[in-house]
Amino acid sequence: MSEIVVIGGGACGLKSASRARRRDEDADITVIERGEYPSLGRCGLPYYIEGFVHEITNLQETLSGEIRNEEYFWKVKRIKVLTKTTAEEIDRNRKTVKISRNGKEDEINYDYLVIATGAKPLRLNVKGSTAEGVFSLSSAEDALKITEMWMEDGIQNAVIVGGGLIGLETAEALERLDINVTVVELKNQLLWNSFDFEMAELVRKCVIREGIKVITSTAVKEIVTRDGAVKGVRIGEKELPADIVIVSIGVEPRLELAEKAGLELTERGIKVNEFLQTSDPNIFAGGDCVENVNLLTGKLVYTPLGSTANKHGRIIGDNITGGESRWKGVLCTSIFRVFNADAGRTGLTETQARSEGFDPVIAISPGPDRAHYYPGFQPIRLKMIADRKTRRVIGAQAFGLGVIDKRIDIIATAIQMSATVDDVANLDLAYAPPFSSAMDHVIHCANIIRNKLDGVKSITPLDFKTRIKDDILILDVRSEKEFQARKIDSKNVINIPIKELRESLDRIPKDKEVIVSCAIGTRAYEAVRILMNRGYENVRFLDGALATWLDEV
Amino acid sequence: MSEIVVIGGGACGLKSASRARRRDEDADITVIERGEYPSLGRCGLPYYIEGFVHEITNLQETLSGEIRNEEYFWKVKRIKVLTKTTAEEIDRNRKTVKISRNGKEDEINYDYLVIATGAKPLRLNVKGSTAEGVFSLSSAEDALKITEMWMEDGIQNAVIVGGGLIGLETAEALERLDINVTVVELKNQLLWNSFDFEMAELVRKCVIREGIKVITSTAVKEIVTRDGAVKGVRIGEKELPADIVIVSIGVEPRLELAEKAGLELTERGIKVNEFLQTSDPNIFAGGDCVENVNLLTGKLVYTPLGSTANKHGRIIGDNITGGESRWKGVLCTSIFRVFNADAGRTGLTETQARSEGFDPVIAISPGPDRAHYYPGFQPIRLKMIADRKTRRVIGAQAFGLGVIDKRIDIIATAIQMSATVDDVANLDLAYAPPFSSAMDHVIHCANIIRNKLDGVKSITPLDFKTRIKDDILILDVRSEKEFQARKIDSKNVINIPIKELRESLDRIPKDKEVIVSCAIGTRAYEAVRILMNRGYENVRFLDGALATWLDEV
Repeated sequence: MSEIVVIGGGACGLKSASRARRRDEDADITVIERGEYPSLGRCGLPYYIEGFVHEITNLQETLSGEIRNEEYFWKVKRIKVLTKTTAEEIDRNRKTVKISRNGKEDEINYDYLVIATGAKPLRLNVKGSTAEGVFSLSSAEDALKITEMWMEDGIQNAVIVGGGLIGLETAEALERLDINVTVVELKNQLLWNSFDFEMAELVRKCVIREGIKVITSTAVKEIVTRDGAVKGVRIGEKELPADIVIVSIGVEPRLELAEKAGLELTERGIKVNEFLQTSDPNIFAGGDCVENVNLLTGKLVYTPLGSTANKHGRIIGDNITGGESRWKGVLCTSIFRVFNADAGRTGLTETQARSEGFDPVIAISPGPDRAHYYPGFQPIRLKMIADRKTRRVIGAQAFGLGVIDKRIDIIATAIQMSATVDDVANLDLAYAPPFSSAMDHVIHCANIIRNKLDGVKSITPLDFKTRIKDDILILDVRSEKEFQARKIDSKNVINIPIKELRESLDRIPKDKEVIVSCAIGTRAYEAVRILMNRGYENVRFLDGALATWLDEV
Repeated sequence: MSEIVVIGGGACGLKSASRARRRDEDADITVIERGEYPSLGRCGLPYYIEGFVHEITNLQETLSGEIRNEEYFWKVKRIKVLTKTTAEEIDRNRKTVKISRNGKEDEINYDYLVIATGAKPLRLNVKGSTAEGVFSLSSAEDALKITEMWMEDGIQNAVIVGGGLIGLETAEALERLDINVTVVELKNQLLWNSFDFEMAELVRKCVIREGIKVITSTAVKEIVTRDGAVKGVRIGEKELPADIVIVSIGVEPRLELAEKAGLELTERGIKVNEFLQTSDPNIFAGGDCVENVNLLTGKLVYTPLGSTANKHGRIIGDNITGGESRWKGVLCTSIFRVFNADAGRTGLTETQARSEGFDPVIAISPGPDRAHYYPGFQPIRLKMIADRKTRRVIGAQAFGLGVIDKRIDIIATAIQMSATVDDVANLDLAYAPPFSSAMDHVIHCANIIRNKLDGVKSITPLDFKTRIKDDILILDVRSEKEFQARKIDSKNVINIPIKELRESLDRIPKDKEVIVSCAIGTRAYEAVRILMNRGYENVRFLDGALATWLDEV
């Protein structure tokens, strides 16, 4: 009878244990969890705070409404879950784990040990960062305390430090409680690690519209306190009032146990092979305490996610019960909802692609998320990134009020299966008016990239921003009415509706660089083709056109 | 200057013409369209009938609201569109097309000819099938006439002949106009060509719940008329009252012109190579008048769809302007909305897979379309089909009130890229509670199939139906409360909640075949693992569990 010990009662730990049980009814399986809530869907914490999920234990429930607590795991899975129990030390020679529980120490033997200790939030390294009222929203305990504070004392002002995914989800949750929320971000954009600038700007516009203040390119200097409790956040000379501060500047793996046990580490995790086995063959590790291979670069990347942790758990559960399951890696796919809009991404950003040695060719496709004559459609913007040399799709980002998760998942699947833009352009996707256009955005993006690979030129919004004062001609080919309603702010803009373009070529000098724009890009592309065919050599369309243009920033 | 003539102003024809224009400003491009509405989104016709789309011309509009009529095509694309014009004959030697327009005949020269004549509805071969009030809803003209009839005379009873996708969409449209609708289908299920029985039954239950009558396994014998107008539909001895009959038993390609011109044909279309070039190198064909290679079987399949026609158009547009674009084929992906529910499919059905020589292994995953603690989730059922030998995913079907288009598209992409279930199980899909569970249905299905390939046994709903009266033990592992609320109707059913299973093995004889069920399948699978591990050899879980069970049929 094999003895299996799992350290960590989160997604990876409990999935490892459950999967092991399914394959081996006789094994003795123990899970050690420091907290009170095993198997808690932590991704749901922001929804608990805003009251959208009623009880914290809802995040522990199975679909049939059972709470996945100690009793559940014992009765259904014969897994011993020890909550409020700390693993103090691993003795690899004797194959034991020293634990402490209710103030007492004990020791458990293992044949196989799974380290799934997860991650902990990075702390802000400034004065006041441990004050009362500073949270990270990484645990149920934090969520409960924030809710209690709001109910008992009220919260007027909140500062979120860090404009990443969790920071923005939390900003929304607090904003919905009628708290004044300010997000402070060190970089010059939100979501800097996962979105390109122009796509992140769409998110910024969205949260600002909902009443959240966003301050970028700004470091927090100090958390100002009074009597040990937060009263503000100092940025430069200015102090933002704050009753509560949420620090969401990222997480780091909990490596102490592994390190003390002498296991090999990578730069940001426990070192594991493709079986998720550590340098000690009897010890496996997964979830937020290991790095993953980025399938596009082959390099390790730290990307802690519940979906990945679950997959790790299944693989580890196989491998500690005689199986041989392998883990390949990730594309850093992620998604989140902020107010009514969704933002998602997969693969490499354009910036990352460039710094990894790819030659990125991009497409931005704005437009309705289904047939535009089907009522209720919503706008989205999809950006796709491909590599010029191999024609492979290597990344995508999307934002919008409409359906974007589908597009990201299609592209993630395509990337994982090494698809080229030519493959993607001919995908047999499900078309009917309530779901997409006959040529979905995904296919449209692939075709835009193919057009560019065939020689049609464009300019990205960021590049255009740096060129807008140059002596170029900006040609807007929308109707006059559309042009009057909103236009690119430049003295170099002229309006020639596409219908009149062929008759108006005398207004477009051949010796000037011409940038063509319209509402979403289709007419601009058409115009560029006309001009190219008429002998204009220096003509480009604006990627994403007005729908992605940065003028309001 | 090259002369391009396109016969057919639908998706393929106008896309060919537009793409050709983008690549060649000088070509002389003419499109011949028999009807009045070029570039009409015919997939939107049911929405027009129910009043969801207001004007028939909405289906012709560009995103910026311009109607794609003759003037539009000329001004924006320099394409001459001749509406209400018939192509009478192709003279391949002289490279001319004889046309008739306004009662006059004319002739147009071509260097390249594109045949995009589309398809026409199959007619019902019974008495009365040409009576007034019999429609097919394949054209704007039909939709306008139906609407006129409803507004002027009122329509009380409608019979839809054919329970396919278009039949059901039309049934819904008419039902929403407060018409009594009956669908009559020859086969023993709806959607027989694209859905397996148990999935089609979910659709049947849904439309019945909405008030539509469905009669399967029944042939229409006669359309009964009075004074030349429809008054009923005779099925066997019975007559269904009907003021209107919609025949939607499929379409067939319009091949007359191609045939008369001596072009080679396939069983159901014009023969084309991978460049969509016919047996005459100057003539190309695409859209609903050609067959496509089924990427899974390598065989030709007739699958007329707007999305495919658009892709054909782009490829033809390339190839008639010096390009070399290739077309590989289709997966017969399709989707439709019926009332609030969606149904979609891709690849092969289980039945088709078997008849094509695959050894199908299936999974059915019912459950919420996002994290079950996230409010507003909706149920879906996803079925996946893989081939035992190669482990490749070869098909999927989905139905539900929740999001299914995403799942179908992910799987269509996976199939097209030759993914195995192991690839799919490790896809890095976008996870956050508003979008999916940490392990999405797609991944869950792949894992179910992997479990089966590892030796866990199941029984399909259809097989179980034939076995239910046998001397087997049906073990329901839900809670007693769930069991009392709804159970499989059999004297052989016993209820042992999963929590009590290990202590109750004495109630389960080892020499009997045991079929385990629960609500959606996860507990049943867990129970099967426990029983297998305890030495039970003849134990299976019910695919799709109660959520897909056929008891109400």
